[in-house]
Amino acid sequence: MLNGLPQIDDIVDAARRLRGHAVATPLLNAPAIDAMVGGCLLLKAEPLQRTGSFKFRGAYNCISRIPEAERGNGVVAWSSGNHAQGVAAAATLLGVPATIVMPSDAPPPKVENTRALGAEVVSYDRYNESREDIGAALAKDRGATIVRPYDDPWIIAGQGTVGLEVAAQATALGLRPDAALVSCGGGGLIAGTSLALIDHLPGIAVHPVEPQGFDDTARSLVVGERKANDLEARSICDALLAPEPGELTFAINRNTLSEGIMVNDEEALAAIAVAFRHLKIVLEPGGAVALAAALSGKLDCRDRTVVVVLSGGNVAPEVFFRALV
Amino acid sequence: MLNGLPQIDDIVDAARRLRGHAVATPLLNAPAIDAMVGGCLLLKAEPLQRTGSFKFRGAYNCISRIPEAERGNGVVAWSSGNHAQGVAAAATLLGVPATIVMPSDAPPPKVENTRALGAEVVSYDRYNESREDIGAALAKDRGATIVRPYDDPWIIAGQGTVGLEVAAQATALGLRPDAALVSCGGGGLIAGTSLALIDHLPGIAVHPVEPQGFDDTARSLVVGERKANDLEARSICDALLAPEPGELTFAINRNTLSEGIMVNDEEALAAIAVAFRHLKIVLEPGGAVALAAALSGKLDCRDRTVVVVLSGGNVAPEVFFRALV
Repeated sequence: MLNGLPQIDDIVDAARRLRGHAVATPLLNAPAIDAMVGGCLLLKAEPLQRTGSFKFRGAYNCISRIPEAERGNGVVAWSSGNHAQGVAAAATLLGVPATIVMPSDAPPPKVENTRALGAEVVSYDRYNESREDIGAALAKDRGATIVRPYDDPWIIAGQGTVGLEVAAQATALGLRPDAALVSCGGGGLIAGTSLALIDHLPGIAVHPVEPQGFDDTARSLVVGERKANDLEARSICDALLAPEPGELTFAINRNTLSEGIMVNDEEALAAIAVAFRHLKIVLEPGGAVALAAALSGKLDCRDRTVVVVLSGGNVAPEVFFRALV
Repeated sequence: MLNGLPQIDDIVDAARRLRGHAVATPLLNAPAIDAMVGGCLLLKAEPLQRTGSFKFRGAYNCISRIPEAERGNGVVAWSSGNHAQGVAAAATLLGVPATIVMPSDAPPPKVENTRALGAEVVSYDRYNESREDIGAALAKDRGATIVRPYDDPWIIAGQGTVGLEVAAQATALGLRPDAALVSCGGGGLIAGTSLALIDHLPGIAVHPVEPQGFDDTARSLVVGERKANDLEARSICDALLAPEPGELTFAINRNTLSEGIMVNDEEALAAIAVAFRHLKIVLEPGGAVALAAALSGKLDCRDRTVVVVLSGGNVAPEVFFRALV
């Protein structure tokens, strides 16, 4: 930890804590998809992670660091769904009560799964209420610890274990990736992952991929300071709707990332269909944007080896159907 | 090889040939599914195999053994779809022309993928024509080698690499499975897999799982000789519709298998939905029957460690939708 920012050692330490609890997800390759992009894609399958997305990693790392004496007061988190499930599962494993503040329009499976994982769910209106305010008030009432979705050094370090695993897996295959495509909402996954990838694979270009209308990180990278999204913007990628880059995540990302890539809803849905047909992995829209960036040609993958982080698969059947028809 | 039947050494040799060509698919675990069955399921994810099912393994092993001088005449195979794709992909990799005889009612994605993998497709009527006769005539015309879907020692040895990997993966996790559930059509997958599992994990009970109306192996095991299915039987599990056990496969299976389990279409579809929601793996009906046997309680998994082979994921969207609604 340096100036409140996680370093590679913190990611290595997180990997140690996660061993035996998180799934070391496979790095997949599909010749049919490689043929579509003219290059070699190494697809990190985080839908196979516990709770169906990478979020368990950061949540477990973070909650495992709460002192024993404070654990009984529980944790509070806010999330559109994946962080909620990650926190609920990690808290249950560590014997800590969890309360999750979720938007009232979150996909029903995410809400149901969060409850099934043992958490209490409190709803709010995504467009008219502040989840931060609601969560902070709850935490104050109960003396609970807030587990932030991305702007926390231990969360970032936990998500960074994705990058650590990818580097080791690619190296074991004798491959040296030229670039990486990583979905980006608040920026926690890509902050930790870019730190780990660059440490192990110097020179790799790590690109954030964001939904149309939520390209705050791409625009922030251009001007060198945090820019917010239009409050009127909407996207099918419910996992990636953070209002602006995190303070800590952007402090890392401004130094580690290459230019941002933006994909629209149709491109995300098309990537879900390709993963269904050729990869047999269930993706949610937000979990499909990195693959969409490759398939749409927005990152030219020809004759290159490119890491693609498939970040989650918690999708409602009706959205999945829309992708496949 | 002993009396024309593959031995464990033949499976180890197949694994050597497949290295770098087949995917060493992950052995997954999902706490939510474990909670449903009250035990520990180790889920072998063959939908992540090249061409979306285990069939590539046997096909590659078999075609790689054709003498160089005969390869130019090509290979001929008959298949409802998964073996077709496996043969097409393996033949293309090995530079061998492939002709595939497929039923006219095979799922369109399987036919399309087979063509996309470089094979010529010849259609036949599943209920009124003999695919064996059509395939044999084609092979004779062209001097081509027939790649049988299951009743071939090299096919069985190739499919057995699934069992070899499962044994190594379970052992690496420090787990000793009590039982295994493996889908069974002609019996090639379970013949090879049971040989490998029993060799590495003596005492494991390996159960064939078949669709209702296609429980030929279960009935054959009871009486000790091959029994055929009713020609009028129908099932949604298009991958598992062999008319009777293979001669070679049953010569192995009669010695290696525990009692058979039968699941109906609705149970297979329910398993597809569970895999979608909790595993994020796409399953086809035939690829889901082993999981269905566990979820339906037809094999009691309580307090046991059970291997479940998820054998394939090549499913048409409309069938997948039916499972999810």
